[in-house]
Amino acid sequence: MTSQALIKDFEEMLGKDNVFSSEADRQTYSYDSAVLTPVVPALVVRPITTEQLGLCVKKLYENGIPMTVRGAGSNLSGGTIPDKTDTVVILTNGLTKILEINSNDLYAVVEPGVVTVDLATAVARLNLFYPPDPGSQAVSTIGGNIAENAGGLRGLKYGVTKDYVMGVEFFDATGEIVKSGSRTVKCVTGYNLAGMLTQSEGTLGIISQAILKLVPPPAAQKAMMAEFDDIQKAAEAVSGIIAAHIVPCTLEFLDNNTIVRVDDFTKSGLPRDAAAILLIEVDGHPGQVADEAAVVEKVLKENGATAVHIPKDEQEKTKLWEARRMALPVLARCRPTTVLEDATVPRSQIPAMMKAINEIAAKYKLEIGTFGHAGDGNLHPTFLTDKRDKEEFHRVEEAIDELFDVALKLQGTLSGEHGIGTAKAKWMEKETSRGTILFSQRLRRALDPKGLLNASKLVGI
Amino acid sequence: MTSQALIKDFEEMLGKDNVFSSEADRQTYSYDSAVLTPVVPALVVRPITTEQLGLCVKKLYENGIPMTVRGAGSNLSGGTIPDKTDTVVILTNGLTKILEINSNDLYAVVEPGVVTVDLATAVARLNLFYPPDPGSQAVSTIGGNIAENAGGLRGLKYGVTKDYVMGVEFFDATGEIVKSGSRTVKCVTGYNLAGMLTQSEGTLGIISQAILKLVPPPAAQKAMMAEFDDIQKAAEAVSGIIAAHIVPCTLEFLDNNTIVRVDDFTKSGLPRDAAAILLIEVDGHPGQVADEAAVVEKVLKENGATAVHIPKDEQEKTKLWEARRMALPVLARCRPTTVLEDATVPRSQIPAMMKAINEIAAKYKLEIGTFGHAGDGNLHPTFLTDKRDKEEFHRVEEAIDELFDVALKLQGTLSGEHGIGTAKAKWMEKETSRGTILFSQRLRRALDPKGLLNASKLVGI
Repeated sequence: MTSQALIKDFEEMLGKDNVFSSEADRQTYSYDSAVLTPVVPALVVRPITTEQLGLCVKKLYENGIPMTVRGAGSNLSGGTIPDKTDTVVILTNGLTKILEINSNDLYAVVEPGVVTVDLATAVARLNLFYPPDPGSQAVSTIGGNIAENAGGLRGLKYGVTKDYVMGVEFFDATGEIVKSGSRTVKCVTGYNLAGMLTQSEGTLGIISQAILKLVPPPAAQKAMMAEFDDIQKAAEAVSGIIAAHIVPCTLEFLDNNTIVRVDDFTKSGLPRDAAAILLIEVDGHPGQVADEAAVVEKVLKENGATAVHIPKDEQEKTKLWEARRMALPVLARCRPTTVLEDATVPRSQIPAMMKAINEIAAKYKLEIGTFGHAGDGNLHPTFLTDKRDKEEFHRVEEAIDELFDVALKLQGTLSGEHGIGTAKAKWMEKETSRGTILFSQRLRRALDPKGLLNASKLVGI
Repeated sequence: MTSQALIKDFEEMLGKDNVFSSEADRQTYSYDSAVLTPVVPALVVRPITTEQLGLCVKKLYENGIPMTVRGAGSNLSGGTIPDKTDTVVILTNGLTKILEINSNDLYAVVEPGVVTVDLATAVARLNLFYPPDPGSQAVSTIGGNIAENAGGLRGLKYGVTKDYVMGVEFFDATGEIVKSGSRTVKCVTGYNLAGMLTQSEGTLGIISQAILKLVPPPAAQKAMMAEFDDIQKAAEAVSGIIAAHIVPCTLEFLDNNTIVRVDDFTKSGLPRDAAAILLIEVDGHPGQVADEAAVVEKVLKENGATAVHIPKDEQEKTKLWEARRMALPVLARCRPTTVLEDATVPRSQIPAMMKAINEIAAKYKLEIGTFGHAGDGNLHPTFLTDKRDKEEFHRVEEAIDELFDVALKLQGTLSGEHGIGTAKAKWMEKETSRGTILFSQRLRRALDPKGLLNASKLVGI
């Protein structure tokens, strides 16, 4: 438990309204969106200026108190679950200023607590485009997006968060300010610390400001939904589109289980009999959109699509896309426990991966709903289970082990976008090497010598 | 001087043909393309397999011998100049295998010694595109490109080397293998060590393999050359094009001094009376190219272009682009010493930067030829001087100090693409912070505890 003297210090620094020490408040920050055991922190603090953020870090460092930084807690790998009961959670939701949107130079400068969709909306008003759109964009923060290197539905064409981080300022474990990157398109001044902080899950530094790349928005879009009577045909169509060198901005997959459950809930009018559907959008210059849409339609039909629907207006398209975004929350309602996986393969291996997922579901007698970013090889097979049923949950764990083995055999990776956190740490060496783990531990120990920054995450301390 | 026993060990490991110990051989590897004092290494070794590369690193680590890895030595900041006379230079030009080009999944896997243009040519044969094109692409290697995060003429639209590094394998200072990234489009398994190695100038690890992103090539291009009678008008036109939200694939600038000297040498038929020219290329879908070219031409004329030439065929375009690539070698012939600068500003600040460059040239009575990647704010003002003339060279140093101050005031950076090396280390703190230098030093000391990897470069050890 944190001492009363420290609580008083924080109250003086931040105001009483921004220090939360009651049992109820602390419980609120004991978990995130991953299926992991909650850990109740000792205290929760909420700086409302970046100067205060730095002072918080300094004070905690000086007192040797562990800290976990939290945006919206929407990550799926336990990155924001406090390490221990003496951890102090630092909230960034008081740091929500968009400091600059530069339309001539195509960048934005923001504080870490800005909500992803708020930034996207603000830049869209100036006819600019911030592409990263993680599933949780309505609540997730830019700081969290950077710490987790968040992906989204547009990853295959537009890349992920790291592709938009031009620069960061952050506090190191001791509370000193570190700067990397620039407002310029190119910058090689010093180590690529901005790249290193991205995806570091709060273990190497605490982001206080980010410079983000913006792009001109595409002039036109065309969306379509393709139905398949066989899940493998849908997977083959995905590979076929990429092999034809068309890179859609969105290429999403939903299997029948997901379709039916989402439609039950949303009444979106999804084709409930389809074995699988693909949601596809191409964008860019109007001429390019027309040409690419024609190629996509041809590939879909060659691969056995039973129907290709073109939404008649933006509203109908939005309804379909919203249905896709509802896949996880809807599946999560079906059983007490939802385990969402994130193993990713090279795109041509999507058919092999899909086959393996269904074989594994049958072998371990488990219910899986599969949806995800098929176009970048990033499927989300979602196990619907009950953690209290030890026998069943053991089968889930065995199934996941086997799933990772398949992904690695297909030259894929453990995690496309959800991160390692504590959820996947034990598999990391299998994908990389002993040397990688040791190198990463040396790196973090040097930058966080007291082991205070989210220490149990990733490769441990 | 390295012991005879060690030389014998290396000869046994690599074969006599791949160990160079003569004075003449060692002299060859004492310098690179930066204007800095040469340092003759103790020995030069040339592994021809990545296993041998790892064994070399291990042996040098065990013996506490400093090492500098060298691709083509074409970097411009001293990154491949040996640290000390007991340094062993490790050449990567025996590691030139393109291991895989995957047309379905759009990536290539290469060894570090592959020459940039060889990779570009090999993928182009399969109708794929590897965009990064540093000025030295005809000789530079992929390993060097990654270590320096090389830029090029296409940076403003297609990004720089780091935007194409999907994964790396590297040997750490002790010779252990470390892996980061994947053949998948998205990968968040562990720290972004691939991003961290990029731009690390050979100080954090020795790259043995890289997975590089490829893209479908643009279907069409249109090139043009615009003439201006006033250098400021050319600079304003650059800002105007970006502000119109057109992102050309190339937007290059040459001032009159550079034009005349290049034309003297190449007889390319450049407009010798122009105060400045812009070389511009837009690419993409044919419809997009037509629309964007029209906007570009309009902006050029609104900003006072006196003529806009469209090359009549690919040959004429190539001639112009080759003339641009000759800017540095031609300027370098004019006086005994060439100091090529690389300060970079946000694109809208190009007019202010151009003005400052010319004022600084006048103030310090120096000859400058300016050319470069105007479209990404990355100009290369090139001082033509003689290092032996101490008084003049002192003025060059003062002028460069002032140039950096201006770039930082305009929210720019010391180096857009050439790196820090030993050439710019002393200015780094001014752009970043004391905390940044200390953080970077802690990082490197942890990963290279004996201080053997190119130790004097970047932030020192």
